[in-house]
Amino acid sequence: MPVGTQATVKALTPEDLESFGAQIILGNTYHLYLRPGHELIRSLGGLHKFMNWPHPILTDSGGYQVFSLNKLAKVTEEGVKFQSHIDGSSHFISPERSIEIQQALGADIIMAFDEPTPYPSDLSQTEKSLNLTTLWARRCKKSFHSDTQALFGIVQGGMHPELRRRSAEQIIEIDFPGYAIGGLSVGEENNMMYDITEHTAPLLPANKPRYLMGVGTPEDLLKCSSMGVDMFDCVMPTRHARNGSLFVQEGKINIKNAQYKTDPGPIEPDCSCYTCLNFSRAYLRHLMMAGEILVMRLLTLHNSTFYQQWMASIRTAIENDTPFNMDWSDKVVHE
Amino acid sequence: MPVGTQATVKALTPEDLESFGAQIILGNTYHLYLRPGHELIRSLGGLHKFMNWPHPILTDSGGYQVFSLNKLAKVTEEGVKFQSHIDGSSHFISPERSIEIQQALGADIIMAFDEPTPYPSDLSQTEKSLNLTTLWARRCKKSFHSDTQALFGIVQGGMHPELRRRSAEQIIEIDFPGYAIGGLSVGEENNMMYDITEHTAPLLPANKPRYLMGVGTPEDLLKCSSMGVDMFDCVMPTRHARNGSLFVQEGKINIKNAQYKTDPGPIEPDCSCYTCLNFSRAYLRHLMMAGEILVMRLLTLHNSTFYQQWMASIRTAIENDTPFNMDWSDKVVHE
Repeated sequence: MPVGTQATVKALTPEDLESFGAQIILGNTYHLYLRPGHELIRSLGGLHKFMNWPHPILTDSGGYQVFSLNKLAKVTEEGVKFQSHIDGSSHFISPERSIEIQQALGADIIMAFDEPTPYPSDLSQTEKSLNLTTLWARRCKKSFHSDTQALFGIVQGGMHPELRRRSAEQIIEIDFPGYAIGGLSVGEENNMMYDITEHTAPLLPANKPRYLMGVGTPEDLLKCSSMGVDMFDCVMPTRHARNGSLFVQEGKINIKNAQYKTDPGPIEPDCSCYTCLNFSRAYLRHLMMAGEILVMRLLTLHNSTFYQQWMASIRTAIENDTPFNMDWSDKVVHE
Repeated sequence: MPVGTQATVKALTPEDLESFGAQIILGNTYHLYLRPGHELIRSLGGLHKFMNWPHPILTDSGGYQVFSLNKLAKVTEEGVKFQSHIDGSSHFISPERSIEIQQALGADIIMAFDEPTPYPSDLSQTEKSLNLTTLWARRCKKSFHSDTQALFGIVQGGMHPELRRRSAEQIIEIDFPGYAIGGLSVGEENNMMYDITEHTAPLLPANKPRYLMGVGTPEDLLKCSSMGVDMFDCVMPTRHARNGSLFVQEGKINIKNAQYKTDPGPIEPDCSCYTCLNFSRAYLRHLMMAGEILVMRLLTLHNSTFYQQWMASIRTAIENDTPFNMDWSDKVVHE
């Protein structure tokens, strides 16, 4: 899922998203609640209409940003008090309030309000956080009523396999139509993320979507898909693009490098994105060095296309039960 | 002509430019010479290929930017010594060098290297500048040889009608396939610009293009077209767009205004641009307030479409010998 934090995937139009086959995008409840406000979006017909995206949308619960963007967020069993990172104003989000906001936004898939366990956390901290997440998940389910939206549950449990198992059991018991693995991609070693995903994914029902939140690199998507994960979201393709960092079959390149100054070829010869069909590396490097805004869109188009095609290849390999023949893990990173 | 200073009309792709019927765009020789360099562009097949714009391009001579971006530029009869505004490096551009650079860039129309007369300038300063411009125009013509490019001359003469007449006579005597009126839109009163244009345009051959450089507002385009001007370039539609300032039939609006916060309508109900067909004022205002880069492209698309349609209406009125029925001069500006 391309990430559309503030009701736009940065630098891209809905037409652009359709051009590389995006099927579903993610919106951030925390950001949209603060600006422009969920009531405004509701009054204008919901998030789909507001941003003119007629395809599926998933909103997160706001939990992750409430904590990551507010170091002084105050948690009680009732919910979380925090200050807006925009204007310092005071706000309170509870599980019920998160559901209310997400129902106003009107995404197709909405997420239970959880407490992402900080990393690192010891067993007792993690257990406490897990218990709160389970309690809040029950309250989310109770306050949620919709014929058009689906509410997914989130498994926490930090880096402790036995707590991941307990969280999975409790969340599954509440019964959701899909389950997410939360609290990863928070600064832990990649191997730890793989270990926890490999341990947790099989605990979740195989007949319902499994969603690994906030992950990851192309290699991460490949490895975690093989562990049974179905859905991912990550700002990596769009954010890297805006820094000139581009994903290619050969690894990763930075278009700002002097070696591309006179390079007449496209970013990737086999790529079918608008950028690769129309512009040279030399031109893109020039736009980047000159600070020209057009380059943000062109590079984002390429990276997003790479990610969509990467996942499409993984799906094809799964459907045909054939090996995935692009090994990206040992690629030289030219940055 | 939309302005594509650094080999891109800011925020727009060639596809975008075609979408609103742009027929010719302008490139800035000064900027392209400094970055990425005219030799690089030549080696990559010229400016059309470099930026993937297969339609006409006009490059200015570099004269205007050499002076406006380098307060310490040193002029001799031979040419101009100046420091790069990017890295402070020393450069020298003469009439011959300007032609050489513009031939490397390969635009369809290129401009003679002139000295834009500063404003204000007294009669004697202006006369001196005019004489240099004529001398340089002769040298440009002499050093220019091409079967594919056209070299236009530029009339100077400041705000002094009698010097405008003398400059026009001298430049016409050299014989160019098109003529520009330079040195206006430099801070003078609008009425002064109109007076000089009304005086100068009829001095130029009616069977060759007349180009008023750096002008202007929709009202300026209308008035100066009625005085016989055929071509204009101006950053106004693109630069205003990036500040949220939008041209509409009703006048001008700024999308950041609070009154648009909940406005479900498009920027302009009758506009056929991608932005007006797909997005509300409320959404565009949200993108602007949130600092989302997408809005730069969307607003630039609208303003550029407005300008192209405005000029198309003027052309139709001229061709059909009918009155131009959109009076924009008395419109309320809501900024």
